[in-house]
Amino acid sequence: MSELKSDQYWMQRAIELARLGQYSTKPNPNVGCVIVKDGQLIGEGFHPKAGQPHAEVFALRQAGGNAKGATAYVTLEPCAHYGRTPPCAEALVKAQVRKVVVACSDPNPLVAGKGVQILRDAGIEVAIGVCEALAKTLNFGFLKAMSTGLPYVRLKIASSLDGRTAMASGESKWITGTAARQDVQHWRAVSGAVITGIQTVLVDDCELNVRHLYHPSLNLPPARVETSTNMSREVPPLIKRVRSDVAPQGGVIDLDSIVQPKRIILDRQGQLPLSAKILQNPETVMVMTPFRQELADLGVIQLSPQPLNQLLQSLAHQYQIYDVLIEAGATLSTAFLQQGLVDEMISYVAPTLLGQSARAMFNAEFSQMAEQLRFELVDVIQLGQDIRLRLLPIQEMI
Amino acid sequence: MSELKSDQYWMQRAIELARLGQYSTKPNPNVGCVIVKDGQLIGEGFHPKAGQPHAEVFALRQAGGNAKGATAYVTLEPCAHYGRTPPCAEALVKAQVRKVVVACSDPNPLVAGKGVQILRDAGIEVAIGVCEALAKTLNFGFLKAMSTGLPYVRLKIASSLDGRTAMASGESKWITGTAARQDVQHWRAVSGAVITGIQTVLVDDCELNVRHLYHPSLNLPPARVETSTNMSREVPPLIKRVRSDVAPQGGVIDLDSIVQPKRIILDRQGQLPLSAKILQNPETVMVMTPFRQELADLGVIQLSPQPLNQLLQSLAHQYQIYDVLIEAGATLSTAFLQQGLVDEMISYVAPTLLGQSARAMFNAEFSQMAEQLRFELVDVIQLGQDIRLRLLPIQEMI
Repeated sequence: MSELKSDQYWMQRAIELARLGQYSTKPNPNVGCVIVKDGQLIGEGFHPKAGQPHAEVFALRQAGGNAKGATAYVTLEPCAHYGRTPPCAEALVKAQVRKVVVACSDPNPLVAGKGVQILRDAGIEVAIGVCEALAKTLNFGFLKAMSTGLPYVRLKIASSLDGRTAMASGESKWITGTAARQDVQHWRAVSGAVITGIQTVLVDDCELNVRHLYHPSLNLPPARVETSTNMSREVPPLIKRVRSDVAPQGGVIDLDSIVQPKRIILDRQGQLPLSAKILQNPETVMVMTPFRQELADLGVIQLSPQPLNQLLQSLAHQYQIYDVLIEAGATLSTAFLQQGLVDEMISYVAPTLLGQSARAMFNAEFSQMAEQLRFELVDVIQLGQDIRLRLLPIQEMI
Repeated sequence: MSELKSDQYWMQRAIELARLGQYSTKPNPNVGCVIVKDGQLIGEGFHPKAGQPHAEVFALRQAGGNAKGATAYVTLEPCAHYGRTPPCAEALVKAQVRKVVVACSDPNPLVAGKGVQILRDAGIEVAIGVCEALAKTLNFGFLKAMSTGLPYVRLKIASSLDGRTAMASGESKWITGTAARQDVQHWRAVSGAVITGIQTVLVDDCELNVRHLYHPSLNLPPARVETSTNMSREVPPLIKRVRSDVAPQGGVIDLDSIVQPKRIILDRQGQLPLSAKILQNPETVMVMTPFRQELADLGVIQLSPQPLNQLLQSLAHQYQIYDVLIEAGATLSTAFLQQGLVDEMISYVAPTLLGQSARAMFNAEFSQMAEQLRFELVDVIQLGQDIRLRLLPIQEMI
C-alpha cells in the first residue's frame, strides 16, 4: 500500500473505534486512536466517557515502549490543554512516536492548532485531513457548536405517504413500524437533548428517553496489513482480546452505560401537568416555561421563554448540548424549518395513505412553487416496511 | 452444476432475452427461448413484435439440425394454436429436442396446457415452473388479463414529501427531476394504455406519449457453462454476433420500433377541446365521453361513460390492453384506489415541502386510522434527487 492508502486504512479503523463512544461521550467528542508500527497494529483505543481517559491514552498504554518510532492515527487533533486529563499531544511526544496522522483539526478554542504545534515543535511529523469528511460525521454537533455556537439540529418526522402524521382526531399510534421506531432510539441516544412541544406531551404523554439500544455493527478493518514482510505474523493476543472488548456487536446496550439525552419541553404558557410521565425522571428534563416553583422543587431546569435560535444558542453555551433532536408536532417542526434552524431532517415514511382530512406534517402555507422548502437527499433506506430519508435543507426560509 | 441449477441458469438467460421485447410485443406477451446442448448455447431468440415469429422459431432457426437431442428453455408455455404463425409446440417436436423447460404455463384459453400436451405426446420431457416468479414479471398484464379478464393496473403518483402534487393555484411543473420523469417513460412504454382525467388534459395539455426511451441494461448470463468437458470451447461466432444484435445496451431506442400506448381520457362531460395537443396523434387516443361527431371524424375511438371496473374490463376484452398506467390527478387516482382497482402504485417522492394549502395527492377523507389504505413496500430506489417506491395495496377499500 502507498503511504496515503495505508494512512486511510488505519484512519478508518480509528474512526470505527471512535464510534464505539457515540452514545456515551457527550458532551465530549467521539475520538478514536490506533498506533501502528511496520504495518502492524500495536495499540488502539477510543474515548468512552467524559472523565475517562482520551483515545490516545488507551492506545499508548497498550503499545507501551513499542510506541517509539510508531505512527499514531487520531480522528481529532490531540488536545493541548490540562482538563480532567493531561494533554494528549504531550503524551504522544513523551512516547516518542515518529508521526501523527490527524483526521480533523479541533475547532475548540482551547485546542485549535495548539495540539499540532506541540507535536511539530517536538520534531514529530504531522499529517492533517486524512479521511476528514468521514471523521467529521462522528462529531457534527461538537464541531458545529465549537465553530458557530449553535448545536447541530436534527428534525425527525414520521408521516404517511400522503404527508400526514395523525388523523384529525389526533389518533396516531402507530404510523411507522418497529424498525423505524427502533432507529429513532439511535438518534435520541446520540443527542444531547430531544426537544418537543407541550402539545405533544399533552396528547401522547411521551417520555422521549432511550429505552432500547443495540450495539452498532462496526466495520473494523483487520488489525494488520498484509505486506511481503509480515505475511505470516500473527496478531498478538493482546490486540485480539482488546478487539473483542472494544467491539461487542449485535447485543443490547446496557442503558446505564449511555448518557441519556435531556428532554426539553417548549411550554410557553406553563401548561405541563406535574403528572406527566416525562417528569418521572425530572433530573433529565428541562422546560422552557414561565417560572414555576413546583418544577423547581422537582429539580427540573427551567429556561425562560425565548426565540428558538436563542434557545439553541443557550443550550450549546450553558448546557454543552451540541446535538439536538426535534420530535414535535407540525407547528413546532414547521417553525424550526422556516427559521432555518434545521441542519438535517430525518424523515420516516410509512406506506400508507391517511387521506386529506388527516393532519399535515408541515403546516406552512405557500401560494407559489418558488416558496417551496427543498432538501438535498443524502440517502434513503428501507426499515421494515417503512423508509427513512436523510435530507439537508438547501434553501433557507426567513 | 446440478440439472436444476443449470435449468435456472439458462432460464434466466431466456427471461433476459424476453425482456428485449418489452416495449414492442404488446398485445402479445414477452417470451424468450434458448436452446442448449452439452452445456453450450446453440440458439436463442425472443418475440420482438406481434406478427413476427415467436421466440422458439428464432432459436430453432439458429440451432438448425443441432437442435436434435437438445434442451429448449422457454419463458412461457409454447403455443398450440395456429395464429399468425404455426404452433411453436409442433416446431419443437419437429426439431426433435429432447427436453423442454417452461417457466410459466400460459393461462390463455387457446394454449392452457395444450402446448405442453403436444410435447409430451411426442415423447419430449417437459419441466414446468423453473424461475416461474421471475418469468411472471415479464407479463403481469397478459397473465392477469388471461386469468381474470382485467388488465394489470399501475398508478403513478409524483408528490412532495408532504404528499402534495401542486400548489392550490394548479402550478406544478416540476416537482420531480429528470431521472424520475425518465423512469415514467419506461412505465408508459410497457403499457397498452395510459389513462388520465379530463382535468389533467385541460390544465397540463399533456400528451402522455413515450418521447425518450433507453435500452434497458440486461443481465445476460454467459452463453456457455464451464464444465470439465467444455472448458476450452469457444462460443461459436454465430452466437456472438446474435448476442450483440439482440442485446444492444445503453443507447436510445428508436421510437418507431416500439408500440406507443393508447392515451385514454376520461371525459364524462365531453369537455375535451379539439385543440388539445393530445389530439395531434388521434390514432392512439381513446376518449370515454358522450358521443361527439368531431372526435369520430378525427378517428378517435370513443367509449361510452361507464364505471371504472367496466371500463378496465372492456379495455382488456375489446382492445387487448393488458397493462394500464394511470397518470391522473388526485380525484381519479383516489377513485381507482378506493375501488380496489390498482395492482401497483409507483410513487415518486421529491425532497421538498409544499405546505398545507397545496393540493393533496390523495383526497379521500378518513376519520379513523382503521380506514387507512396501506401498501406493501416492494422496493425503494433513488432516482437523481427523488425516490421511487413500488407499492402493492394490501387492503381493499370498498
